[in-house]
Amino acid sequence: MSEVVIGIDIGGTNTVYGFVNKNGECLFDGAISTNAKDSAENLFERLFSKIRTDMSSNNAFTNLIGIGIGAPNANYYRGTVEQPPNLNWGTVNVIEIVKKYFDVPVAITNDANAAAIGEMQFGAAKEYKDFIVITLGTGLGSGIVSNGKLIYGHDGFAGEIGHVCVIPNGRECGCGRKGCLETYASASGIKRTVFELLANSNLPSLLRDTSFNDLSSKLIFEAASNDDEIAKKAFEYTGAILGKALADAVHYTSPKAIILFGGLAAAGEFIFAPTKKSFEESLLNIFKNKIEILPSALTEGNAAVLGAAALILNELDIVPQTTKEVAQWDLM
Amino acid sequence: MSEVVIGIDIGGTNTVYGFVNKNGECLFDGAISTNAKDSAENLFERLFSKIRTDMSSNNAFTNLIGIGIGAPNANYYRGTVEQPPNLNWGTVNVIEIVKKYFDVPVAITNDANAAAIGEMQFGAAKEYKDFIVITLGTGLGSGIVSNGKLIYGHDGFAGEIGHVCVIPNGRECGCGRKGCLETYASASGIKRTVFELLANSNLPSLLRDTSFNDLSSKLIFEAASNDDEIAKKAFEYTGAILGKALADAVHYTSPKAIILFGGLAAAGEFIFAPTKKSFEESLLNIFKNKIEILPSALTEGNAAVLGAAALILNELDIVPQTTKEVAQWDLM
Repeated sequence: MSEVVIGIDIGGTNTVYGFVNKNGECLFDGAISTNAKDSAENLFERLFSKIRTDMSSNNAFTNLIGIGIGAPNANYYRGTVEQPPNLNWGTVNVIEIVKKYFDVPVAITNDANAAAIGEMQFGAAKEYKDFIVITLGTGLGSGIVSNGKLIYGHDGFAGEIGHVCVIPNGRECGCGRKGCLETYASASGIKRTVFELLANSNLPSLLRDTSFNDLSSKLIFEAASNDDEIAKKAFEYTGAILGKALADAVHYTSPKAIILFGGLAAAGEFIFAPTKKSFEESLLNIFKNKIEILPSALTEGNAAVLGAAALILNELDIVPQTTKEVAQWDLM
Repeated sequence: MSEVVIGIDIGGTNTVYGFVNKNGECLFDGAISTNAKDSAENLFERLFSKIRTDMSSNNAFTNLIGIGIGAPNANYYRGTVEQPPNLNWGTVNVIEIVKKYFDVPVAITNDANAAAIGEMQFGAAKEYKDFIVITLGTGLGSGIVSNGKLIYGHDGFAGEIGHVCVIPNGRECGCGRKGCLETYASASGIKRTVFELLANSNLPSLLRDTSFNDLSSKLIFEAASNDDEIAKKAFEYTGAILGKALADAVHYTSPKAIILFGGLAAAGEFIFAPTKKSFEESLLNIFKNKIEILPSALTEGNAAVLGAAALILNELDIVPQTTKEVAQWDLM
């Protein structure tokens, strides 16, 4: 029976997981609500209960050799999650909790760092040594790779581009500060922008019948697809701010590519077009017209799971083969 | 006769150079005006004419084994300087020019990258693997070291923190954009701040008798030392903006220390106190109270020269010993 790892991605809204084999194929995936107000212990109790059920229903999942986890404010060096802005956890040692359920090697990092490793192993960054992955979920995460290595920083907390200040004294952020990038460029950021536009303009909009809590980036995307002016303007504004912030990011590590993924990135050209426009306009001359902004090349929904799986495969010194490469070998 | 390298630092105002031995001791240094409006060829003609004179006057300088250069917008990979914002050079291959004068190995990088290598080899960053060096000269340069390696980026142009936008639609920058950090936090930035304060307030000031062109960060420092309110407010404003920008920088690479040097950093607590205050206030919680902001530990005026020298010594696989360590050995 072939060996598998579990990749887990903990988001502000949902926690997704998958059983991934050594070739980087996701054999099965599932999700539960994160319930951000509850404790980490509560989440893992519910998650591993579901995973045990999955394992008992399919023999292919039982030969577990490791667990990789992506989570907000996760510390690779210490195995902790520390004061995550979108979760009511405080500081907690996640590896200790996981070890109570499964006695296998466990590794954890920032959810976006895990995504970056996934893109490097299986996705849009396979050919790049210098790139940044931006995850546009409930918040905005980032994983920065320089010269083929993920940047962890002195304390394991590098890559918090979502908390760079883009509008001095701007919107309140979950981190307690104001004007952070993720209060504008994220699934929750674009909701706030829609509500600002609905307040400031008299334009009719499909979104005037939706409450703040019911609104989602998916609904905004659907409205934009139906030519809703407010929804389209919200994407333009979001892209303008994101593009400018990504141009600033280039000034630090000079990446060859920036890869966007997560709910908001699924809106395609509605978000990519204004982002690219604002990005190019904002770049220093020496960087213009040479940096690509690309969508994730990982299966939608699996990107973060594959990243978390790639993290632990990497710890175990297993170099995964991509599905595509395996398929090519099969043809030889 | 012992071997020497020449370290050259090209700034927007002055070009400084020094003869440095393999132990990292600067045996002799000198400077000429850069004359930013003239060509690169003109600068090197004047510079090497002076250096030839130095060499003919002292035998200790003649056994030249390499030249290291720090310059704005220098490209380590290509040996070029490309569209420097503060010099009227366009794009020029500096290594080709230098080779016309001296047939020795030549390496070039961003002036601030050179400074970072200097701090790592001889200065305040000897014990750090993750740090950022900020040079506060005519402009603001930066060299970012992550896990012991200088970040060059895909194209050799990483580390342009001076051109991160800090005030949307703010002051005009030499790069053609607006609101760049260096238009506020640099020797020229604080001059602009003084003039803004002189315009907006009725406070008496020693600086009301000085023209824009005659004003310098040194004069502003002297005025502040004489309790001049305008000068002190200018340092506070500069530090507030710099501290906030450095907090943003932490979100990318999570350094253990940030080292300030250059003319403005020489103002000591006038600039360090407001910078540290604003820095701590602006940091994400997970970064608070664990990152040091330090002054350069290199001899004032020699920092950039030693950095450029360290760059070429490194290329030549020569690991320099610091002056201090050599002295300690001598005592054994």
